[in-house]
Amino acid sequence: MIIVFEPSAKHEQIQHVFDRLIEWGFNPVLQEGEATSIAITGDTSSLKSETLEAFDGVQKAVRLTQPYKLVAREFKPEGTIIDIDGVKIGGKHFTMIAGPCSAESEAQLLTTAHAVKNAGGKILRAGIYKPRTSPYEFQGIGEKGLPWLKKAKEQTGLPVCTEVMDPKVLDKVKDVVDIYQVGARNMQNYDLLRELGKSKKPVLLKRGLSATLKELLLAAEYIMSSGNHDVMLCERGIRTYETATRFTLDVGAVPVLRHDTHLPIIVDPSHPAGKRALVGALAKAGLAAGADGLIVETHPDPERAWSDAAQQLTFDQFGQLMTELRPIATAVGRTMD
Amino acid sequence: MIIVFEPSAKHEQIQHVFDRLIEWGFNPVLQEGEATSIAITGDTSSLKSETLEAFDGVQKAVRLTQPYKLVAREFKPEGTIIDIDGVKIGGKHFTMIAGPCSAESEAQLLTTAHAVKNAGGKILRAGIYKPRTSPYEFQGIGEKGLPWLKKAKEQTGLPVCTEVMDPKVLDKVKDVVDIYQVGARNMQNYDLLRELGKSKKPVLLKRGLSATLKELLLAAEYIMSSGNHDVMLCERGIRTYETATRFTLDVGAVPVLRHDTHLPIIVDPSHPAGKRALVGALAKAGLAAGADGLIVETHPDPERAWSDAAQQLTFDQFGQLMTELRPIATAVGRTMD
Amino acid sequence: MIIVFEPSAKHEQIQHVFDRLIEWGFNPVLQEGEATSIAITGDTSSLKSETLEAFDGVQKAVRLTQPYKLVAREFKPEGTIIDIDGVKIGGKHFTMIAGPCSAESEAQLLTTAHAVKNAGGKILRAGIYKPRTSPYEFQGIGEKGLPWLKKAKEQTGLPVCTEVMDPKVLDKVKDVVDIYQVGARNMQNYDLLRELGKSKKPVLLKRGLSATLKELLLAAEYIMSSGNHDVMLCERGIRTYETATRFTLDVGAVPVLRHDTHLPIIVDPSHPAGKRALVGALAKAGLAAGADGLIVETHPDPERAWSDAAQQLTFDQFGQLMTELRPIATAVGRTMD
Amino acid sequence: MIIVFEPSAKHEQIQHVFDRLIEWGFNPVLQEGEATSIAITGDTSSLKSETLEAFDGVQKAVRLTQPYKLVAREFKPEGTIIDIDGVKIGGKHFTMIAGPCSAESEAQLLTTAHAVKNAGGKILRAGIYKPRTSPYEFQGIGEKGLPWLKKAKEQTGLPVCTEVMDPKVLDKVKDVVDIYQVGARNMQNYDLLRELGKSKKPVLLKRGLSATLKELLLAAEYIMSSGNHDVMLCERGIRTYETATRFTLDVGAVPVLRHDTHLPIIVDPSHPAGKRALVGALAKAGLAAGADGLIVETHPDPERAWSDAAQQLTFDQFGQLMTELRPIATAVGRTMD
Repeated sequence: MIIVFEPSAKHEQIQHVFDRLIEWGFNPVLQEGEATSIAITGDTSSLKSETLEAFDGVQKAVRLTQPYKLVAREFKPEGTIIDIDGVKIGGKHFTMIAGPCSAESEAQLLTTAHAVKNAGGKILRAGIYKPRTSPYEFQGIGEKGLPWLKKAKEQTGLPVCTEVMDPKVLDKVKDVVDIYQVGARNMQNYDLLRELGKSKKPVLLKRGLSATLKELLLAAEYIMSSGNHDVMLCERGIRTYETATRFTLDVGAVPVLRHDTHLPIIVDPSHPAGKRALVGALAKAGLAAGADGLIVETHPDPERAWSDAAQQLTFDQFGQLMTELRPIATAVGRTMD
Repeated sequence: MIIVFEPSAKHEQIQHVFDRLIEWGFNPVLQEGEATSIAITGDTSSLKSETLEAFDGVQKAVRLTQPYKLVAREFKPEGTIIDIDGVKIGGKHFTMIAGPCSAESEAQLLTTAHAVKNAGGKILRAGIYKPRTSPYEFQGIGEKGLPWLKKAKEQTGLPVCTEVMDPKVLDKVKDVVDIYQVGARNMQNYDLLRELGKSKKPVLLKRGLSATLKELLLAAEYIMSSGNHDVMLCERGIRTYETATRFTLDVGAVPVLRHDTHLPIIVDPSHPAGKRALVGALAKAGLAAGADGLIVETHPDPERAWSDAAQQLTFDQFGQLMTELRPIATAVGRTMD
Repeated sequence: MIIVFEPSAKHEQIQHVFDRLIEWGFNPVLQEGEATSIAITGDTSSLKSETLEAFDGVQKAVRLTQPYKLVAREFKPEGTIIDIDGVKIGGKHFTMIAGPCSAESEAQLLTTAHAVKNAGGKILRAGIYKPRTSPYEFQGIGEKGLPWLKKAKEQTGLPVCTEVMDPKVLDKVKDVVDIYQVGARNMQNYDLLRELGKSKKPVLLKRGLSATLKELLLAAEYIMSSGNHDVMLCERGIRTYETATRFTLDVGAVPVLRHDTHLPIIVDPSHPAGKRALVGALAKAGLAAGADGLIVETHPDPERAWSDAAQQLTFDQFGQLMTELRPIATAVGRTMD
Repeated sequence: MIIVFEPSAKHEQIQHVFDRLIEWGFNPVLQEGEATSIAITGDTSSLKSETLEAFDGVQKAVRLTQPYKLVAREFKPEGTIIDIDGVKIGGKHFTMIAGPCSAESEAQLLTTAHAVKNAGGKILRAGIYKPRTSPYEFQGIGEKGLPWLKKAKEQTGLPVCTEVMDPKVLDKVKDVVDIYQVGARNMQNYDLLRELGKSKKPVLLKRGLSATLKELLLAAEYIMSSGNHDVMLCERGIRTYETATRFTLDVGAVPVLRHDTHLPIIVDPSHPAGKRALVGALAKAGLAAGADGLIVETHPDPERAWSDAAQQLTFDQFGQLMTELRPIATAVGRTMD
């Protein structure tokens, strides 16, 4: 930690900070240069830069180390590969997760599961609990959908990924669900993160819609520090001023996360696109940028879907996308099989 | 709802949308003008514009009515005044809510409660459950702080406001807490909102850090549609590219919300400021813009505070702020007594 | 400047940076602590942090000093007061600049000038060159409006403020115009800034719609370093994801700029409001937050205005606003006379 | 244009808008439905939605047609291919534009030109006029660099692209420069756009750092409506709250622009990356998303570059990038030859 003082800082102000650091048990070193500063050596992880910036005369306090540990690339340089009954996420694999936004009926789900499987998808996604902006919208089929998920899994062999919002439901769904998804709205629902940290199943953690990558990594740190190291990070678009797309896919997040963390990185092209005509371009961009997989919405009859109708692909479109992705995967040294 | 077609839309595409609307039981009317469009008369609240924008050939679908009902100004033109044991929020009142970020000890809390009361504050705030970005930061004192809150209330008569994140704690805190605060990270935690909707106590609902005002109103609609009409909306700064302040106080939210809803509006100047030197200017701006009250952090010894050290005011600074706010309140026709 | 290395940085990488700094004539000091870092003492203003962050193994490079000089509060601690024929901006004065978005006719301009004067406005604003997003919109009346501005000034005694975009017009307008306005789109038009720096007239410099406050100060530094020290900074709303207002007024910019610079600060409530019903609340917020003045659009018949129709106030509304601002000005220790 | 009224709008307010539209020569039709609205048939391109939203009782006014004409896909459905002495941009071609941020010396420029040519680059970029945030930074070599550009072109045959900021320099550079670049800061410098519209050379128009895609298209419309139809649009990252990258590459802009306009689309991966280690991933994402070309910075010795040192690639890195791009280009049906 380096504490930089303003040019106008008085001697007493600098002394006051110095004394407080001594009181707190740190080891401050005063430095004169362009600006007066105090360097603190030793472990400062318990000290927040904001705290130091609150002192009169302080211009800024700069942390020299990252606030996270377990998620850091240094912790596991070789990169994490998650294995779900033989389906791998990470390494040279490029893994397609696909399925409907919401489970609507047994038939709809089974049809989709087979279509995903046939096109080369490796994991089935389907929501049964749906967070919705308005209380008057469809809120998900709930527990009623669990047997459908189970059947889809039995028939296709695809592991199942579904969003959970309330820790209370974990017990109910744990025998069916293989990957717990944390939605963007719940990225900082810390009670949920801690409960998932105690579970034994992989977690797909979506970036909050205005979360920084550092905050995403700290959310993953909540899960890992509670005991669960199988976390996938998901870039799904951030909120910006541009309204031509539903969200702005931050494709630069992929190489940044690759550098900072050993965890696998998934891109969701459906939510930032908002419209199915834009999904393909974003999917290809995510793959080319280095993502370990995609999570894509597809539905037997998108125009009649109960949620996210505009962005779900038809099976034909999904199959076409898979066909277009394969040569790109090869070009960037990935396997989709 | 108006559905506008692209200039290049084919006749079959337009017919397809038309037919689908008939199938769904709506009453579409085709219009030719600058652009071809379909107007739908009658109730379209079950129809999402995104759904319609998914059809080929559609340029955009524009909803003519707001998606919320109970929070709308039309529902209660005269404006809501919340009354908590005689402390009023709304109308001509300008109500100061103040206290420490976190309850740290009985002494710290009682000292602060008296300081708030003496300076003219009307409601005591203090966090016992703290959502923190990092798992390694102080997570709040928890239930241990409840007796302190109770004692502070008994000694000063100030109603107590505290943040709740987990519906499970409502039973534990309900005998002590007068106002449930929903933090920015939980604005779209719908399970929590529904539970608070079933409670009988006022809710202070903070705007999510990248929530639109429409989303804030829909979050309030969740609470109201579950049965609780005593909701205060709180503008606490949004996330933008500017880093000179911790968040950007969207002071324009005050007149916009005043027009759109009957609910009282509170401004939090502490979190957008991030530094105590900036709190005063934002507090005055909030009052002048028409807010019904402020929620401000103050602490007996901010430099040693366990959380949000940089933005908490000393008691002297808080007293000074109250002195500066009074003549402005008078100037804008508000009473602080 | 402090250069912080990544935990994984190799010895050779650190040595390489060290050697390069020596080669460039700097005085680097290696420091071991939580992280390895290099501090550079002496003047580093010619060195960019980005340059250093480009070296392999560097995590970040942190500048300890601000990149601007003449605009800094340290350069002139007592604050700049600009005096235009007796009209003062800065100090205890709160100065209203008002007038139509565009000069449309002699009658329209003269009527407005008298209305502004009668209501207590101190400076007349009116655009004759208009930057417009679409080439098919009204582009301003041009030089034809100069005699109108001159007449308005003669009749009312109000100094005149108008936007300039092209340095070529300075010669044409300099005998009539008292304040050159730089619009948000031109905040980083450096040729223009330098030309204005050579002029002798005050400049009202608007913040670019996604400019940081640091960039705004550096734009002012362009003008000051070219010789003109009479610069006013204008906060006029920034672009964010929120569309309920045209732009988001960053009211926190006022106290931040007050701390960082000695230059006067003007708030434009009209452009962020976008609608006249919201202008009053933003105007009051700007005053209460500590601005030295406002720039407000008013028009004899806003519904028929040729530009910015939605946000211009009627004369009645402008008069009403002035009446409402006076007691607030008194409450915050400002004079409007 | 559809004008939607608030539920609380009074009859007189609606009548007032109706009468005003008649007065202005439009053809309004009153519609009752969920909400009262007025549809205007016929050409409304002279009418701004903001103007209508200024009337009391109006909730919103929705334009049914786009404000631009010449840039629209409808104007030229087959897509524009720009041809510069045989180098093509658009269609099936994927065109690499590369070179140093700034021309620094004849040797530096010539070396780079040959390296670009050898690696398969088709156009040379190099800045001689540099817009810089601070007045104390290197402002470009100026006219002195023109003979270097000329020599580089003669030796390699590569057309030359350089940024122009001031219309006055067009005469000086026109014999050497093949493509005029408009930088992000000047996207709305309308005097410049109009002058470029009168020139006969292709223009590479960069998106402003908080410009919407609609504003980018309108800026291109300025150029086209002045007579020059050879415009390339360049996505170069937008400003968001995320600071892990210098800007956020809005890769979704590529498919959106592809749909809306016939103009070629270039992606600049260097500026959003900000660091050379991130350039490759963004370059590949741009190609995979469907861009017609890239503009990339490369320098013989980036660590010693006079500007943008952190993001310029070494020649080895540039060659490596070209090698990695080729198979992706093939995979998406593009040719780089």
